[in-house]
Amino acid sequence: MVSVKVGINGYGTIGKRVADAIDAQDDMEVVGVTKTGPSFGCEMAVRKGFDLYCTSDDPLMVSSFAESRFECKGGLKDLLSISDVVIDCSPGKMGADNLEKYVKAGVKSIFQGGEKHSLTGLSYTSCANHSENYGAQSTRVVSCNTTGLSRTLVPLYDHCGELKVECTMIRRAADPGDSKKGPINAIKPVLKVPSHHGPDVMTVKPEIEINSLAVAVPTTIMHVHAIIADLPEGHGLSTESIISLWRDAPRVIVMSGEENKITTTAEVMEMARDIGRKWGDLHEIFVWEDAVRLIENRLYYFQAIHQESDVIPENVDCVRALMKMEKNWALSVAKTDEAISKYYNI
Amino acid sequence: MVSVKVGINGYGTIGKRVADAIDAQDDMEVVGVTKTGPSFGCEMAVRKGFDLYCTSDDPLMVSSFAESRFECKGGLKDLLSISDVVIDCSPGKMGADNLEKYVKAGVKSIFQGGEKHSLTGLSYTSCANHSENYGAQSTRVVSCNTTGLSRTLVPLYDHCGELKVECTMIRRAADPGDSKKGPINAIKPVLKVPSHHGPDVMTVKPEIEINSLAVAVPTTIMHVHAIIADLPEGHGLSTESIISLWRDAPRVIVMSGEENKITTTAEVMEMARDIGRKWGDLHEIFVWEDAVRLIENRLYYFQAIHQESDVIPENVDCVRALMKMEKNWALSVAKTDEAISKYYNI
Amino acid sequence: MVSVKVGINGYGTIGKRVADAIDAQDDMEVVGVTKTGPSFGCEMAVRKGFDLYCTSDDPLMVSSFAESRFECKGGLKDLLSISDVVIDCSPGKMGADNLEKYVKAGVKSIFQGGEKHSLTGLSYTSCANHSENYGAQSTRVVSCNTTGLSRTLVPLYDHCGELKVECTMIRRAADPGDSKKGPINAIKPVLKVPSHHGPDVMTVKPEIEINSLAVAVPTTIMHVHAIIADLPEGHGLSTESIISLWRDAPRVIVMSGEENKITTTAEVMEMARDIGRKWGDLHEIFVWEDAVRLIENRLYYFQAIHQESDVIPENVDCVRALMKMEKNWALSVAKTDEAISKYYNI
Amino acid sequence: MVSVKVGINGYGTIGKRVADAIDAQDDMEVVGVTKTGPSFGCEMAVRKGFDLYCTSDDPLMVSSFAESRFECKGGLKDLLSISDVVIDCSPGKMGADNLEKYVKAGVKSIFQGGEKHSLTGLSYTSCANHSENYGAQSTRVVSCNTTGLSRTLVPLYDHCGELKVECTMIRRAADPGDSKKGPINAIKPVLKVPSHHGPDVMTVKPEIEINSLAVAVPTTIMHVHAIIADLPEGHGLSTESIISLWRDAPRVIVMSGEENKITTTAEVMEMARDIGRKWGDLHEIFVWEDAVRLIENRLYYFQAIHQESDVIPENVDCVRALMKMEKNWALSVAKTDEAISKYYNI
Repeated sequence: MVSVKVGINGYGTIGKRVADAIDAQDDMEVVGVTKTGPSFGCEMAVRKGFDLYCTSDDPLMVSSFAESRFECKGGLKDLLSISDVVIDCSPGKMGADNLEKYVKAGVKSIFQGGEKHSLTGLSYTSCANHSENYGAQSTRVVSCNTTGLSRTLVPLYDHCGELKVECTMIRRAADPGDSKKGPINAIKPVLKVPSHHGPDVMTVKPEIEINSLAVAVPTTIMHVHAIIADLPEGHGLSTESIISLWRDAPRVIVMSGEENKITTTAEVMEMARDIGRKWGDLHEIFVWEDAVRLIENRLYYFQAIHQESDVIPENVDCVRALMKMEKNWALSVAKTDEAISKYYNI
Repeated sequence: MVSVKVGINGYGTIGKRVADAIDAQDDMEVVGVTKTGPSFGCEMAVRKGFDLYCTSDDPLMVSSFAESRFECKGGLKDLLSISDVVIDCSPGKMGADNLEKYVKAGVKSIFQGGEKHSLTGLSYTSCANHSENYGAQSTRVVSCNTTGLSRTLVPLYDHCGELKVECTMIRRAADPGDSKKGPINAIKPVLKVPSHHGPDVMTVKPEIEINSLAVAVPTTIMHVHAIIADLPEGHGLSTESIISLWRDAPRVIVMSGEENKITTTAEVMEMARDIGRKWGDLHEIFVWEDAVRLIENRLYYFQAIHQESDVIPENVDCVRALMKMEKNWALSVAKTDEAISKYYNI
Repeated sequence: MVSVKVGINGYGTIGKRVADAIDAQDDMEVVGVTKTGPSFGCEMAVRKGFDLYCTSDDPLMVSSFAESRFECKGGLKDLLSISDVVIDCSPGKMGADNLEKYVKAGVKSIFQGGEKHSLTGLSYTSCANHSENYGAQSTRVVSCNTTGLSRTLVPLYDHCGELKVECTMIRRAADPGDSKKGPINAIKPVLKVPSHHGPDVMTVKPEIEINSLAVAVPTTIMHVHAIIADLPEGHGLSTESIISLWRDAPRVIVMSGEENKITTTAEVMEMARDIGRKWGDLHEIFVWEDAVRLIENRLYYFQAIHQESDVIPENVDCVRALMKMEKNWALSVAKTDEAISKYYNI
Repeated sequence: MVSVKVGINGYGTIGKRVADAIDAQDDMEVVGVTKTGPSFGCEMAVRKGFDLYCTSDDPLMVSSFAESRFECKGGLKDLLSISDVVIDCSPGKMGADNLEKYVKAGVKSIFQGGEKHSLTGLSYTSCANHSENYGAQSTRVVSCNTTGLSRTLVPLYDHCGELKVECTMIRRAADPGDSKKGPINAIKPVLKVPSHHGPDVMTVKPEIEINSLAVAVPTTIMHVHAIIADLPEGHGLSTESIISLWRDAPRVIVMSGEENKITTTAEVMEMARDIGRKWGDLHEIFVWEDAVRLIENRLYYFQAIHQESDVIPENVDCVRALMKMEKNWALSVAKTDEAISKYYNI
């Protein structure tokens, strides 16, 4: 099998995870990752056998690696010259500049949710619009929150044909490795109402009508979504059949909180550590089974999102869409997850 | 003016605040407060000039005070014998036992939101159902959350005549003085869906249709409500007129978060400390003006609730209702707040 | 009695508290407070009857108040022209500029612990060096931590004549009204070892030999000091007599944690709210009686410091020192505390 | 090579980690792990291929597994009958009962730090007293804190021959998977002074004189030790040579906080996740290089302890000591770590 060559531009929180997930697949390979200069991240890349490139093409920055013990193979241009597709995992708001470079190099590109939909005019979630992205030049894997909403709402929509959704997002205020941001003891509402989070779902599934409210709270692990979805008349669903629907949906875990003593995001994350994926990640969306409740046409449920990792497998599928490697989204998802689980799991 | 005699059974988080608020009024007085035994709370009561009684009538418990430097005037029975009305501020779930004692003593009684509506069959919020409680024997001032919802929803309902509400409650996990409870770093959804909080509004305003979802988060200051209210067709309101409505409503503060740099519950509480009420309390519900948004018939807003104190003035009004001291709720509210602000404020 | 005229330059966290404390005294008065522009703080000043001045003399800034509902009496220069002494409560690092203005205006000045000792060459704590500051032109009230250490160490030193101290400071990471700073879930050691905190004690009591280590932790209420003090041979003290010493020392509270159920800083702060000072402040240093332990010549103890308020009464005493109003530090302290407690307390 | 048969009694926070570490060695094997009943932990054991036993010998409890999808091979007695040595990872305070069972079964046993030294009269840390434990029947691997102190203090002691140490422990209040415990916003001093933590070092190295003070703070990740060690006259060490000493010591990581942007425990834990050990564990003690400071004979330093995992490799070495598999502690440590790193790492 010919292996698709993937460059990773930016080897931080998302980039390091994407690199491992790509590396686990048999139909693609990591041809290099970029860093701005020598640092602990380089050490990690080297140990894993990924070639190091510099985020910049400035010879001064490229040569800064020479003084360290890390070998740098060149600048971004050099990485692009050997890549079929680049996954842009650079910090948000650098998209426009980078896109231009990728286009000039004739390389397909995948951005992350920190960039706006308007950058590429196309967005991606595996279960929502894989086929629309098939063969595209450039797209954006949506944010962790949008990805999480798609995972549970798209199967519902696919069954019902219509959905009106309100989501209150209780967001972690900082990532576990970030000790700068607060608040320590406060709740911070996002004063822009509705917040941008919910409507972003419509970039991958425009048919789902959705709004959201958001607050940030003093925790570093997982967002929680409190969701209210109005189903259309004649939906034919029950609380139980909705739970079944999600059990069959990929990358969704439905578990009873009471029975499994998983009553908070702390215990969800502990389960993830037990499963044994790198960084204690949980790629799946966690739905508390005992909190799913359909009352007439209104569905209530809670889900938890691992903000650092749920989009990782989506990036792999997205490579397959852009590179026309697999037309069927469900087959790509199955292949991705099987490979990741072999590589990572217990 | 004849002063109504109020006994306070339980001098803890709520009781100590209620006692001060009653004491500030010119038409009622605190005839005594109860404690289970000698402790720091007794010191506070003594300094403030409140007579001390024992929560129990057991002579052994009553006499336990004798060994301390605090004078105990007798047991609960003794306090009831000189009270016109008792405000029960004992820990939750002791209601049934206590109610029996109050009835036997022929004293009217007011319970708190920790007890169920079914205990008295009657509940109370100043703006919702003062007149229904007029002259009643026994009632229950609803919880901080229910009181908070009434403050903003009842004026809306009074204007529109119909409301369908969904509220996601982001709750503080422990009070500031409580160092036992967690979680330290997690979000805990209430798995019973819908939660009991929203529907409790219907005990004071049955016409408001409401459900709620709730999560607990690692903070000790204030609950936040993310509210979605569907107004009926022809409501005639705009975002601006709703804000006006609330500006005119008692015990609601509407302020711009951005302009006043009050973007989290931390800054709301700091403002409360500046206002100078005891314990840094905020009796009012805080609504972020810049987050109120009416889109067609659906209203979105955030409000913050000071869980330790918003029900305090309600207890004063409730005494006036039960004792037939003031039939007009708005006049009682004005009188209560004027007296409290003279006593407490800057 | 002639009243000393005190200007407060900066009406923020410290300034608002100092103003109230000065206002409570019968031998001094607040002639004005400064703000940079119209804001909620102006509202507070106006309600309390303090004249408002602008932090700057720039006519544009002064006139910015005119557009608001707050009357501004002029610039800093105008305030200085009617002041005998100015208390500088501006944000740290503006000291050098401000000192020049005060000197030019011929006004005595008191800075806060955010400035360095070298600014004035003189520092102040009531119990340590009141007489050295008697009649001085300019001095600095040391930081909350240094003040806290002086309160318990100076009485010990006065008894023993020699002390060698190590203090590990477990510091709150942000103030209660500050929602920007973290960390949410981490411990942050101050990597400069020893930290500057301990040695600062020597600016008011050079005879005490002291070093410190410091960490910041995710709490907003109170610093805790874990202190190890080596007493000289023949100190003649016991655990009990040291506790007695501190009971007799002003602005130190010694209480049993177990007996009073005050086992964390949360319960200490709750007690402070009960006492009824504005903002729930605790001017005293809290020492856990059950954790004081003398083993041979080595003394171990924990104390908690209310970072927002312990220096407030020190500022009042400092005015008396500079203005030669009271030579005896203990008499000033007694007068200050009596006045504050009348004004503030229950 | 004959493989030593190890039973793990208790498959929780410590047990699950010890099982993996034993499993990674080529000279020992896990013959079974116990659970009290069917649960998520059983799933994990089964996936990893560990035989399941019941913590109890009560036939009712043993048979409770039959109703689940997990096969239970028998009770504790059955596990002991095929074990050479049992590692007791049951919750604290069950030691006495269990020890009796192990003795009766003629199996050697290793307890954890939750048990007291007096249970076995012998304690263990690899670098402190491996040879004293050589061939012993029963011992106790000391707690995470004691193990952490040994790792840095024993090499110092071995060089200096004398040490007088004071340690202030800033402890995480709850483990990451534990959402019950607080405090959310407070610091909690251990009122027993000195605390038991420091002196426990003397159970493995009686020659080190040590006391400790402890506080709990609202974080779930890592303890931090602020340490002051008095070296004897003529120690011949400098700040730099002490850093070298620790670089050469096993299971100690010395890194500059500023250079590596690892300034809090959050970043230490993020580095651990990057290294790729299961559960994001860090078996090593982390010392901030820039905070090590020797002033005359007094050494100051900070170290961070991963409370869930630093004792894990110690348990492996301890098996070798008891089973007389390797007399030289340094060789055992090297073998253990090499095997773990192959198994776990990137």
